[in-house]
Amino acid sequence: MANSYGKIFRLTTFGESHGKAIGGIIDGCPAGFTLNFEDIQMDLDFRKPGQNSLTSSRKESDVVEFLSGVFEGKTTGTPIAFIIKNKDYKTVDYKYIKESFRPSHADFVYNAKYGIRDYRGGGRSSARETACRVVAGAIAKQILQINGVKVFAYVNSVGDVRLQKKYEDLDLSAIFDNDVRCPDEECANIMAETINHVKILGDTIGGEITAVAKGVPAGWGEPVFDKLHADIGKAMLSINAVHGFKYGFDDKDISSSKGSEVNDVIINKKGTTKSNFSGGIQGGISNGNDIYFTVFFKPVSTIMKDQKSINLDGSVINLKPKGRHDSCVVPRAVPIVSSMLAITLLDHYLRSLKDKIL
Amino acid sequence: MANSYGKIFRLTTFGESHGKAIGGIIDGCPAGFTLNFEDIQMDLDFRKPGQNSLTSSRKESDVVEFLSGVFEGKTTGTPIAFIIKNKDYKTVDYKYIKESFRPSHADFVYNAKYGIRDYRGGGRSSARETACRVVAGAIAKQILQINGVKVFAYVNSVGDVRLQKKYEDLDLSAIFDNDVRCPDEECANIMAETINHVKILGDTIGGEITAVAKGVPAGWGEPVFDKLHADIGKAMLSINAVHGFKYGFDDKDISSSKGSEVNDVIINKKGTTKSNFSGGIQGGISNGNDIYFTVFFKPVSTIMKDQKSINLDGSVINLKPKGRHDSCVVPRAVPIVSSMLAITLLDHYLRSLKDKIL
Amino acid sequence: MANSYGKIFRLTTFGESHGKAIGGIIDGCPAGFTLNFEDIQMDLDFRKPGQNSLTSSRKESDVVEFLSGVFEGKTTGTPIAFIIKNKDYKTVDYKYIKESFRPSHADFVYNAKYGIRDYRGGGRSSARETACRVVAGAIAKQILQINGVKVFAYVNSVGDVRLQKKYEDLDLSAIFDNDVRCPDEECANIMAETINHVKILGDTIGGEITAVAKGVPAGWGEPVFDKLHADIGKAMLSINAVHGFKYGFDDKDISSSKGSEVNDVIINKKGTTKSNFSGGIQGGISNGNDIYFTVFFKPVSTIMKDQKSINLDGSVINLKPKGRHDSCVVPRAVPIVSSMLAITLLDHYLRSLKDKIL
Amino acid sequence: MANSYGKIFRLTTFGESHGKAIGGIIDGCPAGFTLNFEDIQMDLDFRKPGQNSLTSSRKESDVVEFLSGVFEGKTTGTPIAFIIKNKDYKTVDYKYIKESFRPSHADFVYNAKYGIRDYRGGGRSSARETACRVVAGAIAKQILQINGVKVFAYVNSVGDVRLQKKYEDLDLSAIFDNDVRCPDEECANIMAETINHVKILGDTIGGEITAVAKGVPAGWGEPVFDKLHADIGKAMLSINAVHGFKYGFDDKDISSSKGSEVNDVIINKKGTTKSNFSGGIQGGISNGNDIYFTVFFKPVSTIMKDQKSINLDGSVINLKPKGRHDSCVVPRAVPIVSSMLAITLLDHYLRSLKDKIL
Repeated sequence: MANSYGKIFRLTTFGESHGKAIGGIIDGCPAGFTLNFEDIQMDLDFRKPGQNSLTSSRKESDVVEFLSGVFEGKTTGTPIAFIIKNKDYKTVDYKYIKESFRPSHADFVYNAKYGIRDYRGGGRSSARETACRVVAGAIAKQILQINGVKVFAYVNSVGDVRLQKKYEDLDLSAIFDNDVRCPDEECANIMAETINHVKILGDTIGGEITAVAKGVPAGWGEPVFDKLHADIGKAMLSINAVHGFKYGFDDKDISSSKGSEVNDVIINKKGTTKSNFSGGIQGGISNGNDIYFTVFFKPVSTIMKDQKSINLDGSVINLKPKGRHDSCVVPRAVPIVSSMLAITLLDHYLRSLKDKIL
Repeated sequence: MANSYGKIFRLTTFGESHGKAIGGIIDGCPAGFTLNFEDIQMDLDFRKPGQNSLTSSRKESDVVEFLSGVFEGKTTGTPIAFIIKNKDYKTVDYKYIKESFRPSHADFVYNAKYGIRDYRGGGRSSARETACRVVAGAIAKQILQINGVKVFAYVNSVGDVRLQKKYEDLDLSAIFDNDVRCPDEECANIMAETINHVKILGDTIGGEITAVAKGVPAGWGEPVFDKLHADIGKAMLSINAVHGFKYGFDDKDISSSKGSEVNDVIINKKGTTKSNFSGGIQGGISNGNDIYFTVFFKPVSTIMKDQKSINLDGSVINLKPKGRHDSCVVPRAVPIVSSMLAITLLDHYLRSLKDKIL
Repeated sequence: MANSYGKIFRLTTFGESHGKAIGGIIDGCPAGFTLNFEDIQMDLDFRKPGQNSLTSSRKESDVVEFLSGVFEGKTTGTPIAFIIKNKDYKTVDYKYIKESFRPSHADFVYNAKYGIRDYRGGGRSSARETACRVVAGAIAKQILQINGVKVFAYVNSVGDVRLQKKYEDLDLSAIFDNDVRCPDEECANIMAETINHVKILGDTIGGEITAVAKGVPAGWGEPVFDKLHADIGKAMLSINAVHGFKYGFDDKDISSSKGSEVNDVIINKKGTTKSNFSGGIQGGISNGNDIYFTVFFKPVSTIMKDQKSINLDGSVINLKPKGRHDSCVVPRAVPIVSSMLAITLLDHYLRSLKDKIL
Repeated sequence: MANSYGKIFRLTTFGESHGKAIGGIIDGCPAGFTLNFEDIQMDLDFRKPGQNSLTSSRKESDVVEFLSGVFEGKTTGTPIAFIIKNKDYKTVDYKYIKESFRPSHADFVYNAKYGIRDYRGGGRSSARETACRVVAGAIAKQILQINGVKVFAYVNSVGDVRLQKKYEDLDLSAIFDNDVRCPDEECANIMAETINHVKILGDTIGGEITAVAKGVPAGWGEPVFDKLHADIGKAMLSINAVHGFKYGFDDKDISSSKGSEVNDVIINKKGTTKSNFSGGIQGGISNGNDIYFTVFFKPVSTIMKDQKSINLDGSVINLKPKGRHDSCVVPRAVPIVSSMLAITLLDHYLRSLKDKIL
């Protein structure tokens, strides 16, 4: 069950970084929907390595192949299975992981947990798995869209470089106009410079992604444990390298705010609020206003510098850098964030169908 | 399923703020464990309203009564049901909610979702529900403890007042020595002043809670979706008023850090790391070091000031403040945070049993 | 999770035969439904012990008390919790179970599984738990009914006495006109005689219950694992004393039939079939015709005769009969069968909402 | 969730009869287990069509290909994905299903449920899906075996021909010695004749499979809803063409038995019982004795005779027989039954790990 996400629209993924293929099964997809396969592939292309100078040089075409659940271009309501074959896996690159544990990677914990690990390229712990989420997310986005819901995600900060504008003041259609995935050209350029600079140093840097959902009607989400923002938060924290999550509150600090400053006054029957510090969610349920939140990514753990570590028998070693990795993960993580948001929203939409049958 | 949490150790809660009772069922509790009922009640007392001058004046004795699953003081492996009767419910206080929607409360969204709501005291959306989590959490803590795991939570900030020490430099046994639940006497005093000051203003203020789990062995947690920190994050975000979550990284900013600064070097076979920016978790799986994280609480939405809102038919109204509420929620939220942490950890411990049967 | 049933409309039960109370939580009940509390209690009365001369002499009033999820008579969409207090528990009666294992009871296996058991009256293994299912089933029946679905269950055989009529030829409104719950007066009388005869002998006897659901539209159920009849079958097999399940096939033998004899020819666009050997379900999905099936109950294990067994340390003992038990369980099991059917159908109705949103 | 089975050891399947491939993902498989791939393929070969004269002439090599979760021959604890490519799909054969609904097939209900269906060869409703269960079952069997548990299934009846011996009196190692999968040579011959006779008539016939699990220790299974036999029953009823399930009771009739006749007296501390009418399970929990049960299969719906039906617009049509089908499904269903039994048992074994950690 650990490799499944969603209660009704449910994605189960499989695959290791350097196995034959990665892929997944989507169970619970509504029937009769005409899939736009080009859009799915486009989202995958925005995530794939080697797509531009800012990303890892691993070359994967990341072509998705559907095996079931689609008939004459339409979903049939039965499980949608898909695979993405692994092509550019230079196993030689990763053999050194076999005998040692890389700092801040999952090598050690997989060994501790399972007593065995597929060490090639990080195996299951590789972010390569997120390509499967992008496939499911692209489908979820399409179904949401015909229900009036659009999701967006963009890079909000890279290292110290922070976009000083709110999402309302940005042109969200321009996100993919540059390689950084920041819809402000000027800021994107500085971010790109920062990434390139860090790359030259052989180092890595963190960043932030802001996501927005527009058109979500009031009433999606559940009270108590499956609060909409709790499920979104879990979805985000399940993405590799994510260490933090914050929803609503604009650029305000959550904990130092006063109630009188951040309460959102409702101004009409539709539930529109004057401000939106709540981030479109109250008590775990959407209130009809924009949903927005920020996801915090740590710097990638693989750096092009020597590091100390231990090998399998516990001896201290000097780890030489190898492999091809991103210096900053956020540009490629943009479609992952929007995908996990879309999956969560569609799942909660389907869950909400039960509420008012009477 | 929205009102259940946990996969193997599974809590399902019920109850409205001003109904007959709240309570829950714990399914999947290991058998043969001798419960310490006093400790359970003590945790409840640390959460209950009216316990000291810093908290709401609502008076609830919050006595938990067990109905099943315990025989001669021991768990039997069958569902543990418990109820906490609601005593001090002055329904008159809350009648005004019936006809209007309070800003930043869940009144509007429950109506939108269900077409009906138990408006008394916020009904199901009241934080009163969290008392049930404290009961289950207290049981989880006891079972964890005999497995060598201890959990802690304490107030780290109130408004602008921030504890300038790391958890390692604090005496975690002193958390409950003061009403603020901050284990630094001096800082706690300033926090208390801040809360009282805000209270006098009729306003509310946010805060932060830091939590720590010591003794978790390497190997708890799951790859991909049910990463240990993703489940902990969801658990925290499901607590009323929580808007943010960050794990690891000490007092460092996540997104502006560099890989070379925050990579945790493993120094021995047990997996001990030199630094612990990872927060005790790598790739979603515990690595044997301390697990720690911070939870960000917004200010309580109920303030003792006039606010604008709308009533059921959409007319703008002036909302007069009523009810008894906390000016700052974090002191009472401390046992809730530690409880949700304990439930999540115990559940993942039980989930990990399958990993190495061979 | 073992004590929960249903995916969207989900019942979790708790309680031991001689604990303080039994009860449950219903999560996922649609909101805004006006409950008929008298009908719920009536179903409970049809299940309770001591209601007439054919049943156990244990006296339980079995009054259900609702604690949450209902406001001003209507469901609110939040968890519906309820308890039924245990009143007539003469613990002295059951003390002898403490030291020995009764033949064909669950005493031994609870000990083997948990290392501990609440031996009083069979604890959790007692059929008393099924009262909670009747409460949830009664609610499900009411919601199904406003959606045009009615469920029925009646006694079809007691020992060798078998009702020689099909359900179509019976007056299903007459089921509760006699104590046996067989809608054929004449046959019911012979069944009653058989039960009384067996009772005098200090023995017990098995029986069969046939259940019918009318008005289920085509399209409920799921392909593959959660086939409608597989879920119904599990629901039935989870009832104490049930050892067999058969759906469709009228009075025909399943395995000796030929395809040409039992294929159901569709005669119109609505999917009406000429015969109904399929029992209203094809490929796990309802086809719009009546759903019907038979449930096979073994004789109650507690007999009023001396039996050999062993005690805790393995010595052979002579077990003297004690306690108050039914000689034939089927009359009281009728509302349990119809309840589990109703819960399963409502759950699948809610699950089917996702199928055609497009 | 409808296409998943198991709580901890969890199989999710996908695929249509005439799509590119069928396959599945196994989540929760214990790590470090050396898989015997030949045994997996052997079980698949026992299920595949065209393997001998008694089965459908469809030719499928049914070669399973593993994509993940296995490293250097061992399970890694991560999801095991596998695919079986569909090769011999003569789509032309099945085009006639497009415009009409075959009697007692799922054509009509898929249309009613989803508004669309992959009509080729029955699409998702085809028993071809069960090959995926055999793959997961073969893995489960291997893990069970090193834990001392062996499962068996064999044909017990074909039409009126019934094996007159109990499983204890059979040589269970001889099941696959003949094409009928009945471990009694003489009886198998008569069954084969019956099948061939029915085939010549263009008709089909039902049958029964008996299954046995040996070596299951006392304590597997759960009280209340997830009783071991309830889960086994659901597993069996989820297999195509199954209409009935009975556990325990030898060749005795369940409902006409008396308690004094069928109570199982415990004779030693290990829980061994003198008789075993309980079928190795009491109160839903294994008692350490052999588990056995019988599964009832209806005749295959596709017959080689003209049948009446309707087409999409409701007009009555005369349906000409087409396609390649089995005249009796039970010989090929033997590995499916044993597989679903193995999956259920392994899942409950893993679930039972929580019970006695203390």
